[in-house]
Amino acid sequence: MTETSFTDFQAVLKRCGIDLPSYQGNDINVRSPIDGVELARLAAQPAAAMPAVIERATQAFEQWRLVPAPVRGALVRLWGEELRRCKADIGHVISREVGKIVQEGLGEVQEGVDICEYAVGLSRQLHGKTIVSERPGHRIMEQYHPLGPVAVITAFNFPSAVFAWNAALALVCGDPLVFKPSEKAPLSGLATFKALERAIEQFTAQFGNQAPQGLAQIVLGGSDVAEALVDSPQMALVSATGSSRMGRSVGPKVAARFGKRILELGGNNAMVVTPAADLDLAVRAIVFSAVGTAGQRCTSLRRLIVHRDVKQVLLEKLLKAYSSLRIGDPLHNDTLVGPLIDAAAFAAMQQAIAQAFQQGGKLLTGGQRLLEQQFPQGFYAAPAIVDMPAQTAIVQQETFAPLLYVLSYETLEQAIACNNDVTQGLSSCIFSNDLREVEMFLSAAGSDCGMANVNIGPSGAEIGGAFGGEKETGGDRESGSDAWKQYMRRTTNTINFSRELPLAQGIHFG
Amino acid sequence: MTETSFTDFQAVLKRCGIDLPSYQGNDINVRSPIDGVELARLAAQPAAAMPAVIERATQAFEQWRLVPAPVRGALVRLWGEELRRCKADIGHVISREVGKIVQEGLGEVQEGVDICEYAVGLSRQLHGKTIVSERPGHRIMEQYHPLGPVAVITAFNFPSAVFAWNAALALVCGDPLVFKPSEKAPLSGLATFKALERAIEQFTAQFGNQAPQGLAQIVLGGSDVAEALVDSPQMALVSATGSSRMGRSVGPKVAARFGKRILELGGNNAMVVTPAADLDLAVRAIVFSAVGTAGQRCTSLRRLIVHRDVKQVLLEKLLKAYSSLRIGDPLHNDTLVGPLIDAAAFAAMQQAIAQAFQQGGKLLTGGQRLLEQQFPQGFYAAPAIVDMPAQTAIVQQETFAPLLYVLSYETLEQAIACNNDVTQGLSSCIFSNDLREVEMFLSAAGSDCGMANVNIGPSGAEIGGAFGGEKETGGDRESGSDAWKQYMRRTTNTINFSRELPLAQGIHFG
Amino acid sequence: MTETSFTDFQAVLKRCGIDLPSYQGNDINVRSPIDGVELARLAAQPAAAMPAVIERATQAFEQWRLVPAPVRGALVRLWGEELRRCKADIGHVISREVGKIVQEGLGEVQEGVDICEYAVGLSRQLHGKTIVSERPGHRIMEQYHPLGPVAVITAFNFPSAVFAWNAALALVCGDPLVFKPSEKAPLSGLATFKALERAIEQFTAQFGNQAPQGLAQIVLGGSDVAEALVDSPQMALVSATGSSRMGRSVGPKVAARFGKRILELGGNNAMVVTPAADLDLAVRAIVFSAVGTAGQRCTSLRRLIVHRDVKQVLLEKLLKAYSSLRIGDPLHNDTLVGPLIDAAAFAAMQQAIAQAFQQGGKLLTGGQRLLEQQFPQGFYAAPAIVDMPAQTAIVQQETFAPLLYVLSYETLEQAIACNNDVTQGLSSCIFSNDLREVEMFLSAAGSDCGMANVNIGPSGAEIGGAFGGEKETGGDRESGSDAWKQYMRRTTNTINFSRELPLAQGIHFG
Amino acid sequence: MTETSFTDFQAVLKRCGIDLPSYQGNDINVRSPIDGVELARLAAQPAAAMPAVIERATQAFEQWRLVPAPVRGALVRLWGEELRRCKADIGHVISREVGKIVQEGLGEVQEGVDICEYAVGLSRQLHGKTIVSERPGHRIMEQYHPLGPVAVITAFNFPSAVFAWNAALALVCGDPLVFKPSEKAPLSGLATFKALERAIEQFTAQFGNQAPQGLAQIVLGGSDVAEALVDSPQMALVSATGSSRMGRSVGPKVAARFGKRILELGGNNAMVVTPAADLDLAVRAIVFSAVGTAGQRCTSLRRLIVHRDVKQVLLEKLLKAYSSLRIGDPLHNDTLVGPLIDAAAFAAMQQAIAQAFQQGGKLLTGGQRLLEQQFPQGFYAAPAIVDMPAQTAIVQQETFAPLLYVLSYETLEQAIACNNDVTQGLSSCIFSNDLREVEMFLSAAGSDCGMANVNIGPSGAEIGGAFGGEKETGGDRESGSDAWKQYMRRTTNTINFSRELPLAQGIHFG
Repeated sequence: MTETSFTDFQAVLKRCGIDLPSYQGNDINVRSPIDGVELARLAAQPAAAMPAVIERATQAFEQWRLVPAPVRGALVRLWGEELRRCKADIGHVISREVGKIVQEGLGEVQEGVDICEYAVGLSRQLHGKTIVSERPGHRIMEQYHPLGPVAVITAFNFPSAVFAWNAALALVCGDPLVFKPSEKAPLSGLATFKALERAIEQFTAQFGNQAPQGLAQIVLGGSDVAEALVDSPQMALVSATGSSRMGRSVGPKVAARFGKRILELGGNNAMVVTPAADLDLAVRAIVFSAVGTAGQRCTSLRRLIVHRDVKQVLLEKLLKAYSSLRIGDPLHNDTLVGPLIDAAAFAAMQQAIAQAFQQGGKLLTGGQRLLEQQFPQGFYAAPAIVDMPAQTAIVQQETFAPLLYVLSYETLEQAIACNNDVTQGLSSCIFSNDLREVEMFLSAAGSDCGMANVNIGPSGAEIGGAFGGEKETGGDRESGSDAWKQYMRRTTNTINFSRELPLAQGIHFG
Repeated sequence: MTETSFTDFQAVLKRCGIDLPSYQGNDINVRSPIDGVELARLAAQPAAAMPAVIERATQAFEQWRLVPAPVRGALVRLWGEELRRCKADIGHVISREVGKIVQEGLGEVQEGVDICEYAVGLSRQLHGKTIVSERPGHRIMEQYHPLGPVAVITAFNFPSAVFAWNAALALVCGDPLVFKPSEKAPLSGLATFKALERAIEQFTAQFGNQAPQGLAQIVLGGSDVAEALVDSPQMALVSATGSSRMGRSVGPKVAARFGKRILELGGNNAMVVTPAADLDLAVRAIVFSAVGTAGQRCTSLRRLIVHRDVKQVLLEKLLKAYSSLRIGDPLHNDTLVGPLIDAAAFAAMQQAIAQAFQQGGKLLTGGQRLLEQQFPQGFYAAPAIVDMPAQTAIVQQETFAPLLYVLSYETLEQAIACNNDVTQGLSSCIFSNDLREVEMFLSAAGSDCGMANVNIGPSGAEIGGAFGGEKETGGDRESGSDAWKQYMRRTTNTINFSRELPLAQGIHFG
Repeated sequence: MTETSFTDFQAVLKRCGIDLPSYQGNDINVRSPIDGVELARLAAQPAAAMPAVIERATQAFEQWRLVPAPVRGALVRLWGEELRRCKADIGHVISREVGKIVQEGLGEVQEGVDICEYAVGLSRQLHGKTIVSERPGHRIMEQYHPLGPVAVITAFNFPSAVFAWNAALALVCGDPLVFKPSEKAPLSGLATFKALERAIEQFTAQFGNQAPQGLAQIVLGGSDVAEALVDSPQMALVSATGSSRMGRSVGPKVAARFGKRILELGGNNAMVVTPAADLDLAVRAIVFSAVGTAGQRCTSLRRLIVHRDVKQVLLEKLLKAYSSLRIGDPLHNDTLVGPLIDAAAFAAMQQAIAQAFQQGGKLLTGGQRLLEQQFPQGFYAAPAIVDMPAQTAIVQQETFAPLLYVLSYETLEQAIACNNDVTQGLSSCIFSNDLREVEMFLSAAGSDCGMANVNIGPSGAEIGGAFGGEKETGGDRESGSDAWKQYMRRTTNTINFSRELPLAQGIHFG
Repeated sequence: MTETSFTDFQAVLKRCGIDLPSYQGNDINVRSPIDGVELARLAAQPAAAMPAVIERATQAFEQWRLVPAPVRGALVRLWGEELRRCKADIGHVISREVGKIVQEGLGEVQEGVDICEYAVGLSRQLHGKTIVSERPGHRIMEQYHPLGPVAVITAFNFPSAVFAWNAALALVCGDPLVFKPSEKAPLSGLATFKALERAIEQFTAQFGNQAPQGLAQIVLGGSDVAEALVDSPQMALVSATGSSRMGRSVGPKVAARFGKRILELGGNNAMVVTPAADLDLAVRAIVFSAVGTAGQRCTSLRRLIVHRDVKQVLLEKLLKAYSSLRIGDPLHNDTLVGPLIDAAAFAAMQQAIAQAFQQGGKLLTGGQRLLEQQFPQGFYAAPAIVDMPAQTAIVQQETFAPLLYVLSYETLEQAIACNNDVTQGLSSCIFSNDLREVEMFLSAAGSDCGMANVNIGPSGAEIGGAFGGEKETGGDRESGSDAWKQYMRRTTNTINFSRELPLAQGIHFG
């Protein structure tokens, strides 16, 4: 990065409201994966600071839960407007910090805008049910009430949108936030958070002193900070995005203290391509979902399960498409694939390819490092396709890189079994124009994933549906449908307005 | 129990379909809490037998999930009819085995009947949502599909209904069952289960061979058997009722293997009585909810939080009511309070009273053992009321006995704070005819329990609402509203039926 | 009909609880379409009797609306059990009276059983919403309350099920009933109604005197009786099944007095068969939906819109299938097509065929009268297929007979336009295994009917979905989904439990 | 109005985007009720112009229905932003044109803003249900699709918000609009509509050419224009606000052509004040709801039903409050009551008072004309209270003026009967702090109105609930909850993806 561009970036951060010096420190060294240039050196908060943070959130809850939900929605509306206003800048920070291409950086901010608008609508709903009672002069209803402070612990790969998903719903639901962004992407988190802070200021100006101190807090730090949040009985909900390994640790901890959790963990997402597929459409979907975000989406395509009759022709088309991928600086408008997040990610990819080879795989393309001369500190990998004889151990693992395994099948039952025969259960899809195949894939006997798409890739969900997966992906949901219920507590109320005291189930007593 | 009545009981068991000899063994010694007479000596299944049981359930799932839900509903309908037909007999077994009075035994079976009817209705619903998409030629829907084998681990105090609650929903949702009843109440569990077996037979006769072997299994045994179910990754859902201590162990175990769970754990349920209450109605509710089932419901009333202005008069009425309670053989139609489940329960009650005394409490009535002459092996306790100066440590614990602590308050805020200042969060109620008080109690600033009632006691929920509690009660729900969703997996489906491949969030790629 | 069989029929009626002499009269002459034999001669109630009937219903409403919905559900459960018990007999009455084949008579009663079970489930739901308020100390909820007396006016072709659909929901929703069956099928209506009367007796025996006199009334009579119900402001809801002509009269009348209505009117249901269809499956569906119930279902298939590339082969298969149809006495187990309801129906069919011919149509098969010798008073028509050059005037009309028009198309857009280019909008379907075709047909740009199916015919809906159609079919819905809401009134409740009086929309006043 | 202020008003109109000359004509003479000054002279469109308007809407539908709902939501979001931006100006137009006080003018625009935000949220929902099927290899779903062109015919008293309510939902639901504002308030309608036009421009700039010509049209004119819309079979939905008399004409017309309608007609809204009421709160609510908008809201309070024990004291407080009402120029910030809409309204009020007198009423205050000197052409009425001996004929009529009838009662049953004993059924409320009274009022045996509030007046609904009333109010709903469904058509889809063709209800055929 030239000095000029660095100055430019400083200006972007400033426009995002980030006063870098105030976060200065020696704990977190933020480098751009584009070129390894240091973007910032930040101070981490110590775990010892967490009790005060958590206490502020707890205090804030006492006030925020009583602010009417549509008023809370007004804050989220203002946040959405701020995000829209700063879309280009926040998108730029994301691209710079985690290496997403421009379109994806912008798209991620757009997702924040979208969820804010969605949450504003929810802020006049948050519907429970009224229910008829079996007793005269009685009625039943259920109400959803604010839950308590929510910890949002995010990963580097969606440093903005995942926070927005959680925060927009949590705020509307009446819950204060403590946000711990990934150590690999604190600036993107900060930029998104700062927009929220500005929204809170505007909200206070317009609606008076209704947003309490401590309503939204950000903490920069490492796993000790995350653990303090996970273990605190005051954090009513822990929403954590990361690996299944992380979830295997967090889940029991939260369960042990009777907390609630939203876990969005590993995915090992497959596409089934049948002979009835529109192969050209499939190829476009494969390319986007396998190499987009350099294969670092939790919903990235990792396994291609192709009917043997179309495997050859599909691979030809796919290799041709791969051969023309524009890989490089993600800030260039025509780049399609940027760098991996760091050297470790590249090493993991190499190791996976090696293991795949040992397990009978044949590397069809890619895998090598690119642009090393230009970016000695940037890790650009040629997206790889490995033809596998079977779904071996390495295929069953999630490797966070543009590495696609190809498997073949004969019957749809086999393809579905293959799709399901991994421990993860996030996303999946089928490409077929055959109704029976498609419906079978979506049926109770089909894909066991939280998301099963048709003629689109496994990634790129809309915010209107529930997002999340089964099995080792965690089993929880974010974003649309009724995901908001997880941010609230339900209370079932039976009201007797008669002068009698009948018992349910026809019991007579005394 | 006279010999005759024992013979009678054998006949009852037989009518319930229990062929006692086939369960004979030396592991579980079932004694009636009424008189300590041995009802049966049963063999426990070893933990080593669980893998085969679980495997059968897993196999059954493959078939049952494909049976259309309304057809699954037909099985549950038949079960409900069997339960209605055998209501008197199963109720009798419950009374004999766990000491419930006749009305409560019948009421418990009725709850099974009710949930079966409710589940039949659900069997044509199981509604997901259709959702509009942001992309032309796309649509989104979510479907709920069967989840997998469900373990139902119940406690002695609702040996029939809790199984029915879980099983009726699970079966309709497409899930096989493994039922482990409490070692203290295996016969009630068996009687309920046998009715299901008969229903399966009728179902097969009417609908053909659609109910697979292993669809519903019962295992008698101890905690090792329960643990085998809890730890098995094949048991998709573990529904366990018991103490918070149990839940603190089960929750993390299930979370560690990414399973799902429904935990219904401890309650420490309070009633707030305000000056605007109908005191006579309140007294009736207190009596039923504090001494009913000898105080051994998870929703039993344990804490009475009375406004100081009405405390005196309420206590007078209450003591008068307590003085005329008919305590004794629960099989007599006019008995209101039967025995505690066993000697340990009585000892725990004694200990709690002693601790309460040490913590400043004043025993107003009860606590002593009754009918010792008549039933040397039966533990009948005089329902106790202890006036407490404050919500001390012992009050914050759940003691499973007819032991009611009385606390007083000045402002409603204090009363609510007192209600909430325990670790459990199951049920609660307010007696008041004052709208503002009532609504405050039900509001976001009110009771933090899963159930908050008005002018009825904390116990005796109807099946139409969601049943369960927050905090150390577990946070999950059974029975009505959308509790069925926990027995299914959700899949979000985005279908592209266009010839284009637009991306969400307006992203352009390639 | 031999004398013996007539005696048999008397016995069937008796088992159905119909004491024929008590209905004796000279107004309604019930003849079996099978052979024209008179089954009964019944008295019609005069319009002048309606005010008393309506007043009884109005009185009954005052009491029934206060019976808890789950208790109302218990009545409907008992009705369902009665219908199941008498399924064979009521099915027989239907077959005898309207000429349905045995399977269809039984299926119609089963539909009553199904809706009763469904309604029992609803009886613990009837969910409104709880809604968050924009004002502090406020909450909103909506409740559904009983609506008032419901008139159910049915047609001959579903003389039992349509009453059951309406009555099961209405009763659970808290509404009394006045049932006017078709003059062509009063016995089937009576048989179904008598089962309800027996259920009411059982209900009263079990639940006490909760079902008021006048809860369910049947009136035999003509259009004057129907009009009295339609015009009465006391009949809160008029549910009428019949022709669009009838609806064009009833709709405005009910609207003029601000009543509610459910209109299930004419259908002119089409099937689109594309080149991607499973033609054998399509043929089976066509046969059942075009000739089943002798083409006298409102959802009967009337228009076959076939892609020109498969038209020839489809017609060949279809003609072959038609050639082996077993037409005759519907009480014979192997009969597939029974008689038309009367001579007028046969004449209308003849006229339609003649008009079709004039409009360019070519009769491919059928149309002639059959079995005239055997049944000089029975009108058995050979199911007809007419190949039409275009969707002419006659094709756009509903002819209630086994008369199928065949049209061809080139593009799916044309097929959909053809499907939609009639004034009726009840049911429709597509046979195709091509996902894009299917989804297009189901999309906003597809079929404009209330029901659009895939790979099944237009008839034979399940009770879980909402049944009904758009345009001249009436626009209303019966049976599943949220159809029950039409039998209730909604009340939106905003409750202020604060001590302030804030206004919505931030208005300050005074 | 001074010339300056007239110039000012011209400027306001200009800022609202209204180019007055282009609407110039001699048909509609718009005068301000404030002072009778002519605000504009507009041309009415002839009924003969309607076919072209309707055809444009019909064409627009073909395109708009295919635009994805969330994209349609983006248009509505932009409209909401425009309304927020122009809130002061549009509010001013409303005040000037219909005489609302400043706060109410602003509040009305805010309601438009609110419904737009709400509709944006809906634009990613529009949920139908997925439903399980009784047949293997089948599934059911229901989808909601755009309905067609919607006519919105509004009244003078909510000249902006009612259009916004309908238009925001209709647009999101995929329906084009034809808006006919009241002849008494065309400028307010135009101002609101122009904001929509600007939003469409912005939408087109941002999202391309997706909003078709004819998506939103406004027609100025009289009842002939309205009738043309009402009678056109192309107008899929007619949403009309006005008198019950109007509804009695419109309802049957629309029904006769099988169209859909939303009728929001007359109200005769009551408040029950019980001895348990907070009387000071009640007085504030009475004043706002009886005199706000000069009693010209459809939800204005018209009948005060007071318990005889508190009647005297309540009336004293009320008369005191009435004595200090600030009546006058609504554009002055401290005015609470502005003018009636015109001389006819004043005459009607006079006539009603006279009739009330004849029917035994006693005028307690008000009724006379005020400020005649200052505003010889403005009709300012002193809000009147009339004590009535019984609910006589005049009380049962809706008089659109600040005229409040007082009735007394002894038992709550009487009060409820009185509340219900009118033909209208819009809104109602109870003031009481007694839970039993309140719940009784909200119960099946309580108020029969579409809205029943507690401790707030009958007017001023939030947009989150469904708005509308029963009986002669029309029976339909606008705004929140599931009111959006009326702007769509539902399609029930059963999909067979098996290779079999099973029939529902277990029927075997052939």
